[in-house]
Amino acid sequence: MHRPLSSVDIVEVAPRDGFQSIAAPIPTRTKIELIESLIEAGSRRIEIGSFVSPRAIPQMADMGEIAAHFAGRAGLGLSVLVPNPKGAELALTAGMKELVYVFSASEQHNQKNVRRSIAQSIQELSDIHSLIAPNRDIRVRVDLATAFDCPFAGEVPIEAVLSALDRIAAICPTYEIALCDTTGRANPFQVRQRFEVAMSRFDGFRWAFHGHDTFGVGVANALFAHQAGVGVFDASVAGLGGCPFAPGATGNTATEDLVFAFEGGGVGTGYDMARLLAVADRIADLPGASVGSHLRLVPRMRATAAPIAA
Amino acid sequence: MHRPLSSVDIVEVAPRDGFQSIAAPIPTRTKIELIESLIEAGSRRIEIGSFVSPRAIPQMADMGEIAAHFAGRAGLGLSVLVPNPKGAELALTAGMKELVYVFSASEQHNQKNVRRSIAQSIQELSDIHSLIAPNRDIRVRVDLATAFDCPFAGEVPIEAVLSALDRIAAICPTYEIALCDTTGRANPFQVRQRFEVAMSRFDGFRWAFHGHDTFGVGVANALFAHQAGVGVFDASVAGLGGCPFAPGATGNTATEDLVFAFEGGGVGTGYDMARLLAVADRIADLPGASVGSHLRLVPRMRATAAPIAA
Repeated sequence: MHRPLSSVDIVEVAPRDGFQSIAAPIPTRTKIELIESLIEAGSRRIEIGSFVSPRAIPQMADMGEIAAHFAGRAGLGLSVLVPNPKGAELALTAGMKELVYVFSASEQHNQKNVRRSIAQSIQELSDIHSLIAPNRDIRVRVDLATAFDCPFAGEVPIEAVLSALDRIAAICPTYEIALCDTTGRANPFQVRQRFEVAMSRFDGFRWAFHGHDTFGVGVANALFAHQAGVGVFDASVAGLGGCPFAPGATGNTATEDLVFAFEGGGVGTGYDMARLLAVADRIADLPGASVGSHLRLVPRMRATAAPIAA
Repeated sequence: MHRPLSSVDIVEVAPRDGFQSIAAPIPTRTKIELIESLIEAGSRRIEIGSFVSPRAIPQMADMGEIAAHFAGRAGLGLSVLVPNPKGAELALTAGMKELVYVFSASEQHNQKNVRRSIAQSIQELSDIHSLIAPNRDIRVRVDLATAFDCPFAGEVPIEAVLSALDRIAAICPTYEIALCDTTGRANPFQVRQRFEVAMSRFDGFRWAFHGHDTFGVGVANALFAHQAGVGVFDASVAGLGGCPFAPGATGNTATEDLVFAFEGGGVGTGYDMARLLAVADRIADLPGASVGSHLRLVPRMRATAAPIAA
C-alpha cells in the first residue's frame, strides 16, 4: 500500500482540454501569454495543446506556432496531446519532449472520441512507441479515458481498465498513466479502490488522475486518489472546458480548487494562489469560455490573507 | 480510531438554515408541503425551523404552526433550533422532542451571530439543560459554529474548540455535537484531524459535521469526517441557504451531492434520488432562493438509470 505524498504535481490542461471547448479562435498571442502566466503562477506541468487535424479541432490550428515558442523550455514539463502517429511525428519535429496519447477503456467512447476500436488505438500507441523508442529524452503519458464511467455505456467494468493497462504495459511498462474520469461521475470510493488495484498490479507505471467536478465530487475524487498514493492530478484553471463527446460534462476540476484543497492539508503544489486566481479571471473572460470554479467566486477571500470578511 | 460507517444520517437543514436566507415570506402551507416531500424522499432527520424572535428572523414567524403540524410525528427526527431558554420553552410547549442549540467557538462570531459572549451562551445551554433534564424524551444537539474557521478571525485554534467541548461535556456528556464549518473554508485534512482529536477525547458525544461547499470542498470535507468515524451530516436540499453573518458563504452542501457521494461508495443514506431531485427543483423555484448544487444541474442523468447521455 502506498502512502499519500506530501507534495503533488498538478498538470494544467486548460490550454488543451479547455481551449478546444471554445469555438471562436483564441489569438495565438493570447494563448502564449496565458501559458506564460500559468508558468509564472507556479504551473510546472502544462498540456499546451494538441497536434490534431485542424479540421477536427480548428482551435488547435496554431499548435505548431505555440510549440515553436515553448519547445526547449528547460525545467518544465510541457506536453502536447497526439491522437495518432502522425501527430507524434509533428510534435517531435516541433521539438516537444512530452507526448500525451489518449484512448478509452470503453469501446463505445473510443469510437465516438477518436473513431477507432480499442485494438486500433493500442496498435497506434505501439507505432508511436516504435517512433520514439530510439530517443530517450521523450516521455509518454497515456490518458485512459472512461476509466470509471462512460457517457454511453454507464459504469465501465474494472476488468476493461485492467485489460487496457495490460496492453499498455506490454508496449511500455514505465509510462505515466492517467486514469480519467471523463464524465465526472466517478465516485471517490471507487476512484481510490481502482487505483489501489491498478497500482498493486502494475508497479512500473507512474500514476495520474484526471477528473471533472460535474457531479460535485471533483475535489473528493482527487483526494481519494491521493490517499491511494497518486501524485499527479490534471486540472483546468478556472475550470475551463468540457468534453464535446461526453454530453453534460463540465470542465476539469478547477486548478485553484485543487490547490486550495491540497495546500490546506499541507500537501505542496508549488502554486502562488493570488497569481493563479488572476490567470483564472483572464481565462474566464475569454469570449465563449465555459468555466466552473469555487475559489474564483469567493471574492472576499482575495482581499485579505486569512479572513473572508472583515 | 473509529472506522467509517456503512450508513450515515443526513440532517436536512433547508427548512431552517435555508428558508431563513429568503427574505420574502414563504407561505406556511408551502413550507409544510416541502417538508412532507422531503420525508417522502427519504429524509429521516430534518431541522424544521427555529423558535427565534420573529423580529430577528421574520421568516420563522410561523414556527408554532409548523411545529403543531409535525409534533408527535413518530419514527422521525424532526428538530428545531432554539437560540435561548425561551425558545426551548416554546419548542417544548409545541411538543417538539429534539432541540438544536448553537454557539460559536470564535468569540467574535458568537457576538455577531447570537449577540452573546461564549460564557453567556454556555450559561444558557446550562439553563436549557435544567429545563429539559426532567424529561428523558428530549434530545439536544449542539451546533458548535466556526469550529474550523471564522469569517472575522480566520482559522480558529483547535484549543478553542476543545475548550468549548469541555464546557459542553460538563453540562451533558452525551449530547450530539456538530462541528460546523460555518464559512466553508475548512480543509478536508483539518476536518478529519479535528474530529479524530475530539472523538478520542470525548467518548460520550455523538458526532455530526455541518459544512458548506463555498470553497469546493464541501463533499470532500464530509467524506474526510466520515473517515474519522462521523455518522451524521447536515445538508441542504438544492444547496439552499447562506449565513447572513458569514459574508460570502453559500448554502450548505447540497443534500443530493452528499447522497450521490455516499451512496456511490456503498454508504447508505435512505434517500430516493429521483424524489430528492424533484424536491430540489421545487426549492430552487422558491422566489428569492439562492441555491447551489451539482446533481440538480446534470439533467441527462435523470432521464436514464446509468448513462448521462444516450
